[in-house]
Amino acid sequence: MDNLYIIKIGGNIIDDEGRLSSLLRNFASIKGQKILVHGGGKMATRMAEQLNIPQQMVEGRRITDAETLKIVTMVYAGYINKNIVAKLQSNNCNAIGLSGADADAIRSHRRISSLENVDYGFAGDVDNVNHNFIHYLLQQEIIPVLSPITHDGKGQLLNTNADTIAQETAKSMCSMYNVVLIYLFEKEGVLKDVDDDSSLISKITKSDYIKLRQQHIISVGMIPKLDNAFAALDSGVNKVIIGKAEKILQLIEGVAGTSIVNE
Amino acid sequence: MDNLYIIKIGGNIIDDEGRLSSLLRNFASIKGQKILVHGGGKMATRMAEQLNIPQQMVEGRRITDAETLKIVTMVYAGYINKNIVAKLQSNNCNAIGLSGADADAIRSHRRISSLENVDYGFAGDVDNVNHNFIHYLLQQEIIPVLSPITHDGKGQLLNTNADTIAQETAKSMCSMYNVVLIYLFEKEGVLKDVDDDSSLISKITKSDYIKLRQQHIISVGMIPKLDNAFAALDSGVNKVIIGKAEKILQLIEGVAGTSIVNE
Repeated sequence: MDNLYIIKIGGNIIDDEGRLSSLLRNFASIKGQKILVHGGGKMATRMAEQLNIPQQMVEGRRITDAETLKIVTMVYAGYINKNIVAKLQSNNCNAIGLSGADADAIRSHRRISSLENVDYGFAGDVDNVNHNFIHYLLQQEIIPVLSPITHDGKGQLLNTNADTIAQETAKSMCSMYNVVLIYLFEKEGVLKDVDDDSSLISKITKSDYIKLRQQHIISVGMIPKLDNAFAALDSGVNKVIIGKAEKILQLIEGVAGTSIVNE
Repeated sequence: MDNLYIIKIGGNIIDDEGRLSSLLRNFASIKGQKILVHGGGKMATRMAEQLNIPQQMVEGRRITDAETLKIVTMVYAGYINKNIVAKLQSNNCNAIGLSGADADAIRSHRRISSLENVDYGFAGDVDNVNHNFIHYLLQQEIIPVLSPITHDGKGQLLNTNADTIAQETAKSMCSMYNVVLIYLFEKEGVLKDVDDDSSLISKITKSDYIKLRQQHIISVGMIPKLDNAFAALDSGVNKVIIGKAEKILQLIEGVAGTSIVNE
């Protein structure tokens, strides 16, 4: 089976034009099959402010009311997605930008809240990734760029977490490819000491993870990322890599970042 | 060769949710190969107002400065395009929304002004339509929905006239399909008396057109549309139809609207 790299970038890179351009140049140069998944950034929040749309947060998640959904659809599936695609095209990478509605790429359902009196609004949890269509694009050497807007098949767009989209896409492609899922962020990877970039842990298996947690070495913010990484491995993903955006080519070569792997 | 219907809708339909939903339901029910091309609408103008971005017009065309380009990219390639696609999906039409950057679907160059001291800004004139890619989607029964945002291949998105996109796409598909280009608008079609819907001219050939113009029967606003229609026929398009959005199915059957055809 071919390798397939699924690479997720977040707001910290998207909001920095220089870092984004350099990341896209590196992404374009990756040989072989690849998919880019992007999140949002500050632009949606700024626009909501300028348009006087109040933003409500519950447990760190933005509540997507109808007006917020309009904005994130415009910014994520429109502005950010199309600018990334145009830049990749200029780097000789034949990218195609997709929301979940496009060719029914990612279908989701509206999130049901477990808290009483809390309505997440138009937030989507992924049901299905159209792996045949994505495989089909990859075979034509067309590189999917996935935005975090999905649909429910009944005409409703839904705001969806980009980490989840990366993970669900990774899982769904496992039967066809050796999938490597890469989360790019600010740090070198998983660190023993969050303030010391040289304290990188370069490889973590499940048993390592259990020990590291018992020793309270894993930072609280990293726990959900790692739980998700192991869940991805359990679903057939070959390897999960967490590391710095600037080192994407070294992450792929296995000479930077933290690799989360089976025993 | 198969028939291919290329159908263009403008702001008057896009701005009316009820008319748009009904049009999309009808579009979804058209048998055979089809492409939808959409323009903008009032939303971009409203957003520019709300965000205090002044809109400059030259000869009836909006000047696309950098801030306006951001807005039209968000609204046309994001909000309008993805909502149309999601609604088509809910009508069992496997649509895919595309800007010109996506899979290099439509490449353009920045418009050069013939007037001194006039800069059209980020307005694009079409150079090339990727007919192989569009053919390829159609073969997979995936229906392209084209937004009026294109790219120059060097990383720059460009605002492009939707009528032109429909026409250039029609021309480029002629070697593979019997192309029928349909412009939907407010009126029944070309009228002898613009105020009388029953004065429809149901068929116009080039020689008819010359006579009608000599008799000053064609309204001034209709002349550029008809000139473009005949240019499309000269480039190999089989037929151009102009008519009312509500009658799309009758337009296709040839029992409504004005057909512009070769002698």
